[in-house]
Amino acid sequence: MLQELRAALGDAAVITDPDILAGHARDEAALCEAGTPRVLVRPSDTSGVQAVVRIAAAHGVPVVPQGARTGLAGAANAVDGCILLSTQALDRILEIDPANRIAVVQPGVVNADISKATAPHGLRYAPDPGSWESSTIGGNVATNAGGMCCVKYGVTTEYVLGLEVVLADGEVLRCGRRTVKGVAGYDLVRLFTGSEGTLGVITEITVRLQPIPREALSIAAVFPSTSAAGAAVSAITAAGLVPSLLELIDQVHLRAIEEYRPMGLDTDAAALLLAASDSGVPEDLDRIARLCTEAGATEVHQATDALEADMLLSARRMALPAVERLGAVIVDDMSVPRSRLAEALDGVAAAAERHKVVIGVIAHAGDGNLHPNILVDRSDPASVAAGQAAFDDIMRLAAELGGTCTGEHGVGLLKRDWLAAEIGPTGLRVQQAIKDALDPAGLFNPGKVLR
Amino acid sequence: MLQELRAALGDAAVITDPDILAGHARDEAALCEAGTPRVLVRPSDTSGVQAVVRIAAAHGVPVVPQGARTGLAGAANAVDGCILLSTQALDRILEIDPANRIAVVQPGVVNADISKATAPHGLRYAPDPGSWESSTIGGNVATNAGGMCCVKYGVTTEYVLGLEVVLADGEVLRCGRRTVKGVAGYDLVRLFTGSEGTLGVITEITVRLQPIPREALSIAAVFPSTSAAGAAVSAITAAGLVPSLLELIDQVHLRAIEEYRPMGLDTDAAALLLAASDSGVPEDLDRIARLCTEAGATEVHQATDALEADMLLSARRMALPAVERLGAVIVDDMSVPRSRLAEALDGVAAAAERHKVVIGVIAHAGDGNLHPNILVDRSDPASVAAGQAAFDDIMRLAAELGGTCTGEHGVGLLKRDWLAAEIGPTGLRVQQAIKDALDPAGLFNPGKVLR
Repeated sequence: MLQELRAALGDAAVITDPDILAGHARDEAALCEAGTPRVLVRPSDTSGVQAVVRIAAAHGVPVVPQGARTGLAGAANAVDGCILLSTQALDRILEIDPANRIAVVQPGVVNADISKATAPHGLRYAPDPGSWESSTIGGNVATNAGGMCCVKYGVTTEYVLGLEVVLADGEVLRCGRRTVKGVAGYDLVRLFTGSEGTLGVITEITVRLQPIPREALSIAAVFPSTSAAGAAVSAITAAGLVPSLLELIDQVHLRAIEEYRPMGLDTDAAALLLAASDSGVPEDLDRIARLCTEAGATEVHQATDALEADMLLSARRMALPAVERLGAVIVDDMSVPRSRLAEALDGVAAAAERHKVVIGVIAHAGDGNLHPNILVDRSDPASVAAGQAAFDDIMRLAAELGGTCTGEHGVGLLKRDWLAAEIGPTGLRVQQAIKDALDPAGLFNPGKVLR
Repeated sequence: MLQELRAALGDAAVITDPDILAGHARDEAALCEAGTPRVLVRPSDTSGVQAVVRIAAAHGVPVVPQGARTGLAGAANAVDGCILLSTQALDRILEIDPANRIAVVQPGVVNADISKATAPHGLRYAPDPGSWESSTIGGNVATNAGGMCCVKYGVTTEYVLGLEVVLADGEVLRCGRRTVKGVAGYDLVRLFTGSEGTLGVITEITVRLQPIPREALSIAAVFPSTSAAGAAVSAITAAGLVPSLLELIDQVHLRAIEEYRPMGLDTDAAALLLAASDSGVPEDLDRIARLCTEAGATEVHQATDALEADMLLSARRMALPAVERLGAVIVDDMSVPRSRLAEALDGVAAAAERHKVVIGVIAHAGDGNLHPNILVDRSDPASVAAGQAAFDDIMRLAAELGGTCTGEHGVGLLKRDWLAAEIGPTGLRVQQAIKDALDPAGLFNPGKVLR
């Protein structure tokens, strides 16, 4: 098989060095198992991907597609004996069409590089996962990534118009369109989006661009309790306001950030709520600020300029790396109806208390999407077990509150059982029927999403 | 079979009167064939739908789901010997949750009734197909309906969060969620949305609501040529403006509207462009107006109040009924990249010229979505043939311009061959694999979308 791969891709694109393989065996999901890959391949065009898939199929060897491995659910983790198919060498922006506000890109292009390339045309690619400066668009599409702008602008799937995908038999499927609207046949684009590498290998993506919004005005509101911050979020939503950002940072994260990069954050606050508005209507932000005060904010600070607004945003972006310095982090991801944000925050705190673990929460609060980050000591089995018990409690809590086990990180290996519990036997059966229809031999990313 | 249906649903919900059956045999697609149904059933709850599907499956009788039959592609047309399954008795709004901006509705609820019910909460259901006052939300979801607000707010699929669907084996699938975000498993909601009744019967829909936008300011710009109007649309898009409505009405329709309901429209204009902005930033509309003038508009009229703005909108909504008074209309639906709108308009005019038929065009211009309405004399086979030849030319034109054969009306019976041409053999094979996975016996709406 290795010979066939080398003949198809050239020696340099077929890597068997054990250290490199070990370095590529997993994504950023802590505590997810990872197998030992047989080989890492880095095709640089669609026909190279086709060749890999055909060789893999002929040998009955599983294919695990990988982008930048910044995923948080283990979807890119190796399975034993697999071919790791990295899309990072498929890294070209093929076309920018400003008149139609689209770009055609290969999957290995880094998210932020799309907006950099389209900025001269006054356009951006909106979805901005935390990893936007390192994650690839292919991985973003495979996981249907979210981000901070989603509260106003929606998630990845809203920005994917067309895909080229290499199927399990090595054929190339082109689906979707270059037009704004289109309803020709089943929506295959959105079926592949979020399928976590289990249905095919994405080799080209047509994304929708958006005019760069007006400059956002930002505030930071300090709350004495997380539930007061939750109440503020509910009030903002209920008032019909549409902030362009509405993020919550709890005390655990505030302290971790301040320790990592001192910036004068109030580390006695229970929670900081960051809100921004790019509506162009200044009163909108004033109303958001007033609602924060009414909900109990002890201080509402308005950023005086773009620089300060950026600083607030970068504090939020620093939250995960800052907390990761404190220990191993089980990053969780739950989404609840927006009205139940305060209950979710209380429930997470109760789980931390119950299992004697530290859990910090950052949340895309405006979307009801929380990331409880559970700190564990990897060298202490009791600590890991306590963290996992808290994780399970949080997943149960998501279900009890009418929410979902994953808002934006995906299922991967981490949440297969929680997916099964959430969608039930009929849901699982339909999911499996679709998997079987597109990948009858189970070639792509076996054991991910569905067991 | 009829006895079993009566036992399951009650006599009143099982209709065999030939006149009623004939009246329900087709949707609003002119010139699409329709078969003779065996029976019309009107279940009023999910278990009734399950019973119908199980009885149909046991007898090997096809099921054709129907909403208000306002579709324009024949997707709701009867096939010979089928059970017509009307969802119109499933007509309850089950829940309005203003805090989470969602509503849970049955498929038979009329589109406009959702917004009426949610207006007291300051919320609306955004997608607004031309038929919004008569079409049902189930039909809207089944066809992934568009509308006039799509240019800013997107189409139906962006507003469907969750579905309950009765599958081909009579089981009930619940998919999707009540949260803003969620990526648990394959996106079944968006697979069923736009599947035109071929994969299951939708029995419940969780829709996303949206704060009622600020009052829109509107203008009407008069153009001496359709290509000048097309150029204005391109300029508006290129300037990064996001109008809340951007509609084109050509001379054929202007004259038909003015004859139907005189309102002082300029019937010498080649095209009227209606634009609105609800951004809350008054300069946005001024800029749109200026770009119209620069593109050659001979007159730009700003509506002085909401009443006048509504009048302009109602003129646009009247376009199809007005032109239908002139003869049988083959309603076409093509989407092209926005930058090619002017070419599309010229191409449609050339097709009319070539085949000596009258073709009027109304367009969701801001989306590049055109409706060439081909007027034919149903009693004259030569006229019908000429109309169909023009239709075929327009479909070829859509492909040549990098567009799609259907922007919002769907495939149904009307465009199966054009779908096949557009997506190619691999695309068709994947579409068929999904159909077979979910409906192996071909129970639901056979012969629609896929032959």
